[in-house]
Amino acid sequence: MITSLLAMSVALAVDIGGTKFEAALVTNAGEVLQRRRVASTGAVHGEELFARLAGLIEAFDLSGVDVCGVGSGGPMLPNGEEVSPLNIQVWRSFPLRARLAALSGVPTFVDNDAKALALGEGWLGAAVGVRNYIAMVVSTGVGGGIVLDGRLLDGHTGNAGHIGHVVVEPQGTELPGHVRGVLEAEASGTAISFRTGAAASEATHSERCRAGTLLGRAVGSVANLLDLQLAVVAGSVALGFGEDFFAAAQRECDRVAQLQHSLGTRIIPAGLGADGPLVGAAAVGFRGLGLSLGIDSRR
Amino acid sequence: MITSLLAMSVALAVDIGGTKFEAALVTNAGEVLQRRRVASTGAVHGEELFARLAGLIEAFDLSGVDVCGVGSGGPMLPNGEEVSPLNIQVWRSFPLRARLAALSGVPTFVDNDAKALALGEGWLGAAVGVRNYIAMVVSTGVGGGIVLDGRLLDGHTGNAGHIGHVVVEPQGTELPGHVRGVLEAEASGTAISFRTGAAASEATHSERCRAGTLLGRAVGSVANLLDLQLAVVAGSVALGFGEDFFAAAQRECDRVAQLQHSLGTRIIPAGLGADGPLVGAAAVGFRGLGLSLGIDSRR
Repeated sequence: MITSLLAMSVALAVDIGGTKFEAALVTNAGEVLQRRRVASTGAVHGEELFARLAGLIEAFDLSGVDVCGVGSGGPMLPNGEEVSPLNIQVWRSFPLRARLAALSGVPTFVDNDAKALALGEGWLGAAVGVRNYIAMVVSTGVGGGIVLDGRLLDGHTGNAGHIGHVVVEPQGTELPGHVRGVLEAEASGTAISFRTGAAASEATHSERCRAGTLLGRAVGSVANLLDLQLAVVAGSVALGFGEDFFAAAQRECDRVAQLQHSLGTRIIPAGLGADGPLVGAAAVGFRGLGLSLGIDSRR
Repeated sequence: MITSLLAMSVALAVDIGGTKFEAALVTNAGEVLQRRRVASTGAVHGEELFARLAGLIEAFDLSGVDVCGVGSGGPMLPNGEEVSPLNIQVWRSFPLRARLAALSGVPTFVDNDAKALALGEGWLGAAVGVRNYIAMVVSTGVGGGIVLDGRLLDGHTGNAGHIGHVVVEPQGTELPGHVRGVLEAEASGTAISFRTGAAASEATHSERCRAGTLLGRAVGSVANLLDLQLAVVAGSVALGFGEDFFAAAQRECDRVAQLQHSLGTRIIPAGLGADGPLVGAAAVGFRGLGLSLGIDSRR
């Protein structure tokens, strides 16, 4: 019956971040209801931290919830069966998906937070109606998610989209733990602090422009490589740097993306703002159920 | 009935190259039958050249043929409705797909030759059984095709896979008509001739290694970006350079591809040799029909 197609679905959306956990109920129309959060710092072991997340989730009435969708920092095993978020030391190979499925009692899907952002931006953000784009997060690190031919790319272990490790400046910054000259070693908050000795928010005009230029180079290369024409960029560093950063990024992208298919590639701020992580997490859940969001379903 | 699933399909496979056109009948088991070729050089206008291609094709008995699949140099409009192969001057916006469909009387599908190679290598070549890989052609230019999550990537206008325009050496060679430092401006036959003043086949050991290193850098970046672990490389320059080239490429790829998902990425010669273009063209046709090749169908 047609009514079943139109019926509302509700996701429990969970964003796993290095400073906070946030959760909300999100409808398949994109409404974000009952947002709650709790700090994710200071736990001394993984079970203590999960108990905090469980408390957050148990505060919701889950009776009308169809699915649990989760965006988390990586790395993780495929489908988030084990997560080891770089900035959550007490979770290493933590079985997040199974634990949340047991807690919520509904089908539970976990994905990388940058891939979640990509889904959310295509569903309700700055990439609505676009079938080929990259979404990026430039904050402590640099991550990304790519939608191509209307589908979110997964790759062999679910890590496709990781633009932070594209080489942009072979003779560039030697950030410990990174291959020299990859985008994350140049334009992430960590890299900028390493270069300048101060918080990224203190960076000079020329440092902001340099980071923007190198991001634009990576986007230009990806536009040439994948025949996509849009990058939507979120994250505290990029959004904090603002106009200086985006203008430099666009200039360098224009220089690099000169093919018939890449000319005119645009780099713009993400559209969902503070709702992005939760909308993205909900999209991970709806995608897992095979619900169309206008862009992608898993099968 | 199960028999209809097992029945043999036959493609008329056509490879459109800058020096020759080649055609064959190729079964859906990958058998290449009745290969024929004709020179594609020296025609003074587009119709003269098409007449030559028509003569080649009309020499086949097409009564048992189900589909026509074509691999061609680009650029082209989506689905090859118009092709303007860089090295075929007399075809600019030539309506190749429609002309071949009218000539052959069967459904006709045209795609970029590097994407055709990717399909062929996954079907019967060096990428059999692999769901995430890039196939590359390093000859006059540098092209590529990417299979991710078991699907050939198309991108907005069908040009996804174009690894030749990824920036690998920002302070590198200024090859006319290219953005400085893209892979094609460093490792293509054209670039090497430009750098050395001699044919690529005369290149010194150090030039061969340099080209290999920069190819390895591009592959490492793409492995990091897309969570793929295999590059199969064809083309006269790469295969002609041989071991020097592949060893240097692998070394640099190992240096760049250090993420959990990209460690161990391999760069190997393509597996189909001289059959590659025709098997790939046939695969374009079978993909168009929605026939499974073990990797990809269009829908």
